[in-house]
Amino acid sequence: MSFNFKEWDGFEHGTWRKEVNVRSFIKHNYTPYDGDDSFLAEPTDTTKELWDQVMELAKAEREAGGVLDMDTKIISTITSHAPAYLNKDKEKIVGFQTDKPFKRALMPYGGIRMAEKACADNGYTIDPEIKEFFSVHRKTHNAGVFDAYTPEMRACRSSHIITGLPDAYGRGRIIGDYRRVALYGVDRLIMDKREQLETTRSAMYSEVIRAREEIAEQIRALEALMEMAASYGFDISRPAKDIKEAIQWLYFGYLAAVKEQNGAAMSLGRTSTFLDIYAQRDLEKGIYTESEIQEMVDHFIMKLRLIKFARTPEYNSLFSGDPQWVTESIGGVAVDGRHMVTKMSYRYLHTLKNLGPAPEPNLTVLWSTRLPENFKRYCAKVSIETSSVQYENDDIMRVTHGDDYAIACCVSSMKVGKEMQFFGARANLAKCLLYAINGGVDEISGKQIAPKFRPVTSEYLDYDDVMQKYDEMMKWLAGVYVNMLNIIHYMHDKYCYEKIQMALHDKNVTRWFATGIAGLSVVADSLSAIKYAKVKAIRNEEGIVVDYEVTGDFPKYGNDDDRVDSIAYDVIHRFMEHVRKNHTYRGSIPTTSILTITSNVVYGKNTGATPDGRKKGEPFAPGANPMHRRDTSGAVASLATVAKLPFKDAQDGISNTFSIIPQALGKEDMIFAGDIEVDIECNSGACTSPTLFEGLDSDI
Amino acid sequence: MSFNFKEWDGFEHGTWRKEVNVRSFIKHNYTPYDGDDSFLAEPTDTTKELWDQVMELAKAEREAGGVLDMDTKIISTITSHAPAYLNKDKEKIVGFQTDKPFKRALMPYGGIRMAEKACADNGYTIDPEIKEFFSVHRKTHNAGVFDAYTPEMRACRSSHIITGLPDAYGRGRIIGDYRRVALYGVDRLIMDKREQLETTRSAMYSEVIRAREEIAEQIRALEALMEMAASYGFDISRPAKDIKEAIQWLYFGYLAAVKEQNGAAMSLGRTSTFLDIYAQRDLEKGIYTESEIQEMVDHFIMKLRLIKFARTPEYNSLFSGDPQWVTESIGGVAVDGRHMVTKMSYRYLHTLKNLGPAPEPNLTVLWSTRLPENFKRYCAKVSIETSSVQYENDDIMRVTHGDDYAIACCVSSMKVGKEMQFFGARANLAKCLLYAINGGVDEISGKQIAPKFRPVTSEYLDYDDVMQKYDEMMKWLAGVYVNMLNIIHYMHDKYCYEKIQMALHDKNVTRWFATGIAGLSVVADSLSAIKYAKVKAIRNEEGIVVDYEVTGDFPKYGNDDDRVDSIAYDVIHRFMEHVRKNHTYRGSIPTTSILTITSNVVYGKNTGATPDGRKKGEPFAPGANPMHRRDTSGAVASLATVAKLPFKDAQDGISNTFSIIPQALGKEDMIFAGDIEVDIECNSGACTSPTLFEGLDSDI
Repeated sequence: MSFNFKEWDGFEHGTWRKEVNVRSFIKHNYTPYDGDDSFLAEPTDTTKELWDQVMELAKAEREAGGVLDMDTKIISTITSHAPAYLNKDKEKIVGFQTDKPFKRALMPYGGIRMAEKACADNGYTIDPEIKEFFSVHRKTHNAGVFDAYTPEMRACRSSHIITGLPDAYGRGRIIGDYRRVALYGVDRLIMDKREQLETTRSAMYSEVIRAREEIAEQIRALEALMEMAASYGFDISRPAKDIKEAIQWLYFGYLAAVKEQNGAAMSLGRTSTFLDIYAQRDLEKGIYTESEIQEMVDHFIMKLRLIKFARTPEYNSLFSGDPQWVTESIGGVAVDGRHMVTKMSYRYLHTLKNLGPAPEPNLTVLWSTRLPENFKRYCAKVSIETSSVQYENDDIMRVTHGDDYAIACCVSSMKVGKEMQFFGARANLAKCLLYAINGGVDEISGKQIAPKFRPVTSEYLDYDDVMQKYDEMMKWLAGVYVNMLNIIHYMHDKYCYEKIQMALHDKNVTRWFATGIAGLSVVADSLSAIKYAKVKAIRNEEGIVVDYEVTGDFPKYGNDDDRVDSIAYDVIHRFMEHVRKNHTYRGSIPTTSILTITSNVVYGKNTGATPDGRKKGEPFAPGANPMHRRDTSGAVASLATVAKLPFKDAQDGISNTFSIIPQALGKEDMIFAGDIEVDIECNSGACTSPTLFEGLDSDI
Repeated sequence: MSFNFKEWDGFEHGTWRKEVNVRSFIKHNYTPYDGDDSFLAEPTDTTKELWDQVMELAKAEREAGGVLDMDTKIISTITSHAPAYLNKDKEKIVGFQTDKPFKRALMPYGGIRMAEKACADNGYTIDPEIKEFFSVHRKTHNAGVFDAYTPEMRACRSSHIITGLPDAYGRGRIIGDYRRVALYGVDRLIMDKREQLETTRSAMYSEVIRAREEIAEQIRALEALMEMAASYGFDISRPAKDIKEAIQWLYFGYLAAVKEQNGAAMSLGRTSTFLDIYAQRDLEKGIYTESEIQEMVDHFIMKLRLIKFARTPEYNSLFSGDPQWVTESIGGVAVDGRHMVTKMSYRYLHTLKNLGPAPEPNLTVLWSTRLPENFKRYCAKVSIETSSVQYENDDIMRVTHGDDYAIACCVSSMKVGKEMQFFGARANLAKCLLYAINGGVDEISGKQIAPKFRPVTSEYLDYDDVMQKYDEMMKWLAGVYVNMLNIIHYMHDKYCYEKIQMALHDKNVTRWFATGIAGLSVVADSLSAIKYAKVKAIRNEEGIVVDYEVTGDFPKYGNDDDRVDSIAYDVIHRFMEHVRKNHTYRGSIPTTSILTITSNVVYGKNTGATPDGRKKGEPFAPGANPMHRRDTSGAVASLATVAKLPFKDAQDGISNTFSIIPQALGKEDMIFAGDIEVDIECNSGACTSPTLFEGLDSDI
C-alpha cells in the first residue's frame, strides 16, 4: 500500500511511501551542498534573549549546587508533565522533560535506590509512598539484576575487574529513529506497528510472547507521544508539513525518549540531512527565510542542551561530568558516492557560534576524505573556534553500516532504527593479567576472585607460561562478563524497557552485544616486557605478586613496532574469541570497544603494579592509547600502532585520544595531514566536555 | 549434611534430616490408626464461643450484601497487615489475611480492573493513586495477557469456544508444601533455597536468569513469612516443637499464600497424617490431651473456613458461589502397602460435626478399597450427616503420583512440593463440532471465528465427512487454546508469581499444563446420532446450520454401549493428541480434565443446537456425565461408560456428578457397592457448596 499525504507534496517518490523507510526518503530527496559557510545566518534577537535566559538559569543552577529543582513525587512518563516553556511566545521549538526548565525528572524504573540517592545527594527527599511502591510492588532493573547475580559476579564487580556496568543506571545506547515522527506522523507509525503485531510468529514461544507484549507497549508509547505533543498544541498524528514542524515533530520524538529513559547515552541520531530536505523545500517555496530556519535550528539545539537527568555524584565522577551524549551524526558519504553534507550540516555546526560552544549535543562529523573541501575547512574552523566537534571515520564505518547509521554515545555506530546496542561497559584486561599471574587472587585485596588456576611460581616471568595462563584467565573473565551482561539486558528489558525508542525501530532489530576492554596498552607493554626484557616477580608475605622489577628494554606499544603491536592485536582477538564462545542474550551479536576515555584513571587506581613497570594505582592510558610518554617515535608511528588493531574484533569502536597543538601541523587553518583527523584540543583539565576528552577515533 | 534440631527429639531418623523431604518424615514416623471414632472429643466451650462469633460475623456479612469490609488502599502482601484476632485469648491457632476478620484484601497484581470492580461491585472505591500506579507503572497479569493475545484468541474468548481462562483472575492450582514450615522451620528452608540458588546452571540463558530471580524472590517471601509470624508473636525460624506449633507454623505458611495470591483454587495439601505424628508424640508424652488437640484442629479449620477474597459477582456466578477450594486430602494408602489413615484423619472430618457442615475446607478422602473398614464406615457416617465430604480414587492416582500427592481445587492431583499445575480452564468441544459443520462460523453470532475450512454442504450429515472436519477443527482449536495458555502462564509468572507457594516447592518442579474440555457427552451423542441415525441439517438464510432434525434412534453415552462410548474415548484421545502437538510453556506436560461441574450451564447457554437433538442454549451435562435422562440402563451402566474414558489422556481428572438417595443402595449406613464410591448428596438447588456439586470423581 502506498501512502500519499499532502504534507509530502514536492517530495520525490520512493519505497519510503510504501514502507517506513527514512533512508529511502533521504536518498531520493536530499541536496548535497558544496558551497561554503557564507549563507549562514546570525542569531536572532529572540534567540539571544532566550539563550540569555538559559544562561541565567544555568548560573542559578550552579549556585544551587548543581541542581535547580527535582521531582520527588511525579514519576516521569511521556505524558506525566504539563507543558513547560522558557518563553512560550518566543520559542520556535518547544518542549521540556518536566513542567519547568531545569527541573530534573524522577525515573525510578532503573533502580529506586539510585533515584532516591540522586535526590538525596542534591538535598531532595523522594516521596515515601513512591519509595515503598518501587521497593515492594514494582520491581526495578537494579533489583532484578542483583537477584540474579552470582557471588562470583558480585566479587568481580567489587574487585573492579569488571566495572561501570549498567546495572544501576539506564543502559542507553539506543537511538530511536526520531525522523520517522516528522516524515510519517504517528498514525502511520502506529499502523506499521499494528501490522508488526499481526505478523509475529503464531506459536507462542516465550520470545514471541515477549515480542508481542513489547510491540503493544510500543503502540501505547506512540499514543502517549501524540498526547504529549497535543498538550503543547500540536497534532503529530499526521506528517510534518514544513521545516518548523519537522524539527518540532522530530524533537517531540526525542523528548518522549528522554522523558521515559535516563539512559547513559541518549543520542539523537543523524537528523541534519533529513531536515535539510524540508528546509530546502521551504526555502524554494519561500515559506521561510534562512534566518528563520537558523533560528529554529538554534532553538532546537538549545533544547537539546537543556536535557538533564537526576544523577548521583558518583555517576558524574565516573563520567567526568554530567554527560547525556546527545550525539548527532553529521555529514558522511552515501553508498551511491554522493557526499551527504547539506546546508543543514552547516546550520547545526553554526549553533556552536550562535549559542557559543557546548559539549551537548555532541556534534559528530562523519569524516570522509570525500567530504567537500569547503565543509572540511568549515569544520576545521569551527573546531578551532569552539573545540566542540567530534570526528569519526565514515570511510570505515560505511562498509558495515551503509549510509544511514549514527553514533550512539561516543563511538558506537548503528543503523538508525534498524540496529540497537546492549551496552556493556568494560572488563579490565590489565587486572586480568595480574589474576593470571596470581592464580585468580586479587593483587590488591588478596581475595580469591577467579577460580584457583595455577599461579606463576617462578621468580622470573616466562612469556609462554604467562601467556597460556592469561589466555585461560581471559576465557574465564569473558564468561563471567558476558553472563553478567546477559542478566543486565534481560532485566533491563523486563523492568526498564525503552518503549518509545523501540517504537521508532523496525520490527526485526539487529542487537549488538557490546563488551569493552580497558588497559590494552598496559597489557601489551607488560607482555612485551616479559618477552623481550627480564621481569622479576616481587611477592608479598602471602606469596602474592604485588610488584615487578624490569631489567632491560622492550618494544613499547605506540611506536609502530610489530613485535609489541602484534601482541595487542593478539590479546584483543583472543578476548573476543572467548567472548564469542558464550551465549548472548536475545540473539545479539558480540562486539567490543576500546574506549575508556575518562575512566582509565579509575581503572588504574584499582589495579596493582603491572609487569610493564607501571606502579600500583597509576592511571591506564585512555582507550587504545599508548601509555603516556612511551610513544617516542612520533605522532605518525603512534597512530600507526593504533591503526593496526583489528576493527573486526572491536567493531563497537576504538578510541585514541590524541592531543596536538595546531601550530605543530603547519598553518593554523590547515590542519589536515593526509587521512588523519585530529580533534585539535588539548585534554586540559579545564575541559569538561565529553567531546573534548574524546579526541580522535582511531578508525583509520 | 544432616540436621538435628532438638524439636525433632523422638522422631525416627530418615533422609528427611539430610534434605527437605516431608514424605520421608511421614513414612518413618506416622502411626496408622485402625480404630473407630470413639476417641474423638467434643468441641470445647471456647471453640463454641469462637464459632458463635464467626456465625454472627457471617450473618452481618450476609446482611451487608455479601461483604463486610474491604481494603481499598493497602495492597496485600505477606507482611502488609498487622495481626488480627477473633479473640486473642481464646484462639489456639491465630492469623487472618488482613487486619481484621472478614475484611477482604486488595490484590491488584492479577489485574487492576478486576480488583477495582470487586471493590466497586461491593460498594467500595479503590484508592485513585493505587489505580493509577497499577495502570501506568506496575503492569498486571491481566494487562500483560491482553497485550499478547491475537485477534483470533480474543474472538475465541468472545464466542465462548474457549472460556473461563485465568486471564483475569489468579490461576491457583498450586499447593505449597506448608508442612515444611512446621517440620524444618524457615531458616532451614532458606538455607535450602540458597543452595538451590548456588546450583543453577551457570550459563545465563534467559530461563536460568528467570530461575535465579524466582529463587531470590522465594527467599524474600520466606523472610516475609517469618516476619509475619513474628508479628503474631511466633519465631518460626526454627522447627515446630509440638502439635500446637506444628499446626500454627503450617497455617502461617498457608496464610502467607492467601495473603499473597487470590488464586482460583488455594488448596491446602495433605496435612493430616503429617500433623498426626506431632499429636501422637504429644499424647504419648502427655503434653496435650485429645480434647486440647481437637480444639486446635477445630480452630485451625475455623480459620480455613474464613479465608476470603475480593471477587466480582461474575466470578461468583461462574463458580456458583465464592469458592476458595481449600482442599485437604485425607487418607489414602502408602506405596509400602500401609494405609495412611491416622487419628488426625478422623479429627479433620470431626470438625464437620464440631463446627457443623461447611463447604470449606474441601475435605477430600483419598479412597482406596484398602482403607480400614472403621474409617470407611466413619466417612460414610460423616457424609450422611454433613454432605460435605469429597471422595477421590487413590488406587488410580497412586500409580502416577505415589503416596504424597494432594488434590488442588476439585480433582487435580499433584505431588506436594514437587509438582504444580498451570491451570487452563476449558475448550468447548461441542461448539467445536458445530464449527466443523459450519466451516468455522459461529452458529450463534454468525461470525467467522475459526479459519475458513470447508463447511458441511450436504443436507444429511455423513459421519466420515463430519468426523474428518471435526478432527481438523479440533486441531485448530487445540492450537489456539494451548497458545492462549502459553501467554497466560508466561504473564502470570511475570506479573503475579506465586512467591511463597513456590518457595515451598523443590527446585526442580514438574509443571502440568492443564487443559480441559466441556461438552463431551453432547459430542459423543451427536456423533453417534450422525453415525447411527439420520441427522438433517437445518440452515438459516445465511446458510449456517442452526438446528438439526434427528430421525431414528442411536446409541447414547451413559449406557455402557461401546458403539458410542468408543466415540467419546476417541474424541478425548484425538483432542489430547492435537494438544500435544503444540509447544507448551516452560517444559510443562500437557494434560486435560473433564470437569465442568458448575459451568456446564453457561457453556450450554452459549452453544447452538447440536446434532444429538439438544436445543440451542440447553445446558451440557456436567463433567463427563451422560446427558440428563439419556443414561437409561441403570446406574452401573452409566458409571461403566464413564469408567471407559482414557485416564492417560485426561490425567487432570474426570468428574462425574452422580446423585443417589441412600435408601436406593440398601441400608442407610451401608452405602458401598463394590469399588464405586458415591457422594451421597443430591445436587439440589439448595446446596451451595462446591463439594456438593462435585459428586463422584470418575477415576474408577
